[in-house]
Amino acid sequence: MNRPFNFSAGPAVLPEEVLRQAAVEMLDWNGSGMSVMEMSHRGKEFISIYEHAIKDVRELLSVPPEFSILFMQGGGIAENAIVPLNLSEAGQTDYVVTGNWSERSQKEAQKYCTVNVAASNRESGHTCLPSPASWKLNDAAKYVHLCTNETVHGVEMHEIPDLKALGSNAPLVIDFSSHMASRPVDWSRVGLAYGGAQKNVGPAGVTLVFVRNELLGRALPHCPTAFDYKTVADNQSMYNTPPTYAIYIAGLTFKWLKKQGGINAIEERNIAKAKLLYDYIDASQLYSSRVAPACRSRMNIPFFLNDASLDERFLAGAKEYGLLQLKGYKTLGGMRASLYNAMPFEGVQALVSYMREFEQTKA
Amino acid sequence: MNRPFNFSAGPAVLPEEVLRQAAVEMLDWNGSGMSVMEMSHRGKEFISIYEHAIKDVRELLSVPPEFSILFMQGGGIAENAIVPLNLSEAGQTDYVVTGNWSERSQKEAQKYCTVNVAASNRESGHTCLPSPASWKLNDAAKYVHLCTNETVHGVEMHEIPDLKALGSNAPLVIDFSSHMASRPVDWSRVGLAYGGAQKNVGPAGVTLVFVRNELLGRALPHCPTAFDYKTVADNQSMYNTPPTYAIYIAGLTFKWLKKQGGINAIEERNIAKAKLLYDYIDASQLYSSRVAPACRSRMNIPFFLNDASLDERFLAGAKEYGLLQLKGYKTLGGMRASLYNAMPFEGVQALVSYMREFEQTKA
Repeated sequence: MNRPFNFSAGPAVLPEEVLRQAAVEMLDWNGSGMSVMEMSHRGKEFISIYEHAIKDVRELLSVPPEFSILFMQGGGIAENAIVPLNLSEAGQTDYVVTGNWSERSQKEAQKYCTVNVAASNRESGHTCLPSPASWKLNDAAKYVHLCTNETVHGVEMHEIPDLKALGSNAPLVIDFSSHMASRPVDWSRVGLAYGGAQKNVGPAGVTLVFVRNELLGRALPHCPTAFDYKTVADNQSMYNTPPTYAIYIAGLTFKWLKKQGGINAIEERNIAKAKLLYDYIDASQLYSSRVAPACRSRMNIPFFLNDASLDERFLAGAKEYGLLQLKGYKTLGGMRASLYNAMPFEGVQALVSYMREFEQTKA
Repeated sequence: MNRPFNFSAGPAVLPEEVLRQAAVEMLDWNGSGMSVMEMSHRGKEFISIYEHAIKDVRELLSVPPEFSILFMQGGGIAENAIVPLNLSEAGQTDYVVTGNWSERSQKEAQKYCTVNVAASNRESGHTCLPSPASWKLNDAAKYVHLCTNETVHGVEMHEIPDLKALGSNAPLVIDFSSHMASRPVDWSRVGLAYGGAQKNVGPAGVTLVFVRNELLGRALPHCPTAFDYKTVADNQSMYNTPPTYAIYIAGLTFKWLKKQGGINAIEERNIAKAKLLYDYIDASQLYSSRVAPACRSRMNIPFFLNDASLDERFLAGAKEYGLLQLKGYKTLGGMRASLYNAMPFEGVQALVSYMREFEQTKA
């Protein structure tokens, strides 16, 4: 039997190959006689899993050697505190607000530092992105924070801004949780990038942090030691017991991504998948996207039926059709299709077929 | 083929039944068409997993209704900061030092509050426990912190002290990571208990916190919101995305524990397993335990060969015999056998047989 297509915004679909391998290895990883869950994180078996995962993600995303790669816990929401605890020095910081997630980031940061909202798209209902040229950056900012893909509102920054060209010398911090590993990253423009794994990379419970080594060692005195980037880096993410199984699944996903042809190949597929759905939505009479075309996310595609009273029928029919978790975010309503790396092209084709059939027959 | 016996101190052995069920359900949980890793934490499928896990652990451990049960991230080491961030009010606190873990706890707490070391067994090399009657408790302490089982040194508190009888009105905070769910807990003596799951309960990456509701809402202003117990409790552990798969495995483990007859039955087995090993060690000429009999841990049993030059041969032979991860903690040397709930009696019998054979033939 074919598995249904799962459009959850996260935790989200994983490659079937990864899950199959995890099932096969559940009781005995590589002849060790142990499940990966049962291994000491200090033993040679888990160290080898960890080292392969780090090597593969560094290679996949072309992460330069001047960055450390950390596996942490708490997800993007914990990073909302951990970033200012590590980088703000209790001084000035710039936050660009582009949707639900960056709103939460700037709000949490206010506990630790002075937050300057350098730009905001609130007035548009978070449906378009403020042009970097319009940002009011602060010379004294210790960093500039940006969410490069907003999972709830479905806006994506298709180019990482060049802060130097905008006159700022601050490091750029990006929350790239929901499009991490879906496209290449221009690391020359980034100081720190973080993301929860539960979109494109693995299960919930592990956060990936990519940080320039020059930014390590600036934590505030009341930063918990387990969340001090320098401590985490100095201890190869094993100052506290790492979420070993989640790291293992992330490692399998990195190997799967390499087999798909790497990040450039996966980006091409992601472009084609998103185009198929947006083109259909734009041509239809029943469905609409509220996001300006130039900043539409490839990963998270909120859309609305022009008659919200049809929503429940649409969702019930989708489930029968084998299309799961399409319900929109609680505060936005409507629908949302998340097209992460592990969503095959056939899944988007099936979604569009169902949407067309629903429009023609039921609406 | 039989699986080898895994004596790791954590992450540690899990019940084979739990792993088999996880493998079977990996691609399709309960007919949902999804792996548990792929489910939205807000969907009815995962909510049902979460609710069963909470209900089962509350029943298993007889947790009274005035306690909230939280699933958090970061393990015991993160809790070393999270506890004082939530409960110290930047005031006075009492810490009892009984080994490696409580040493780390009191050190981290110094970032947030004034730490009074009420008692310490440092002079004994952490091989016996300071009698509660000798503790120098501070009237102004916001809480008293205790590690009731020290994983590294192998000392266990077999009765939770009654602070009221010792003249203190402070709530008692216990780190019970490495013996959680191995024995009953007298909750009337506890204000808060925390433990990483990776010993008796599940994989690394989820921390269980049991906290009296009257202690919620005291967090310091710079406590990260994701680690504020009140926020976590108010949001059913879903303020940030919880480590869903780790919670699922913990839930399967709780069901397995119930099938074993519950905590009293598992405690009896744990007593019998520990007795078998300690009795053999005490009777042997080659092996010794350095821990005073009255405070020996049932869970973590460090032991030493009287000639350390035999250690490598002992470990290599053990591995051939199907006995894994017996090497002692890096700073202590020697051996350590962890006999968590999921270690069958037969595993301890096999260990004792091997030790006897090694003593008779190789030493």
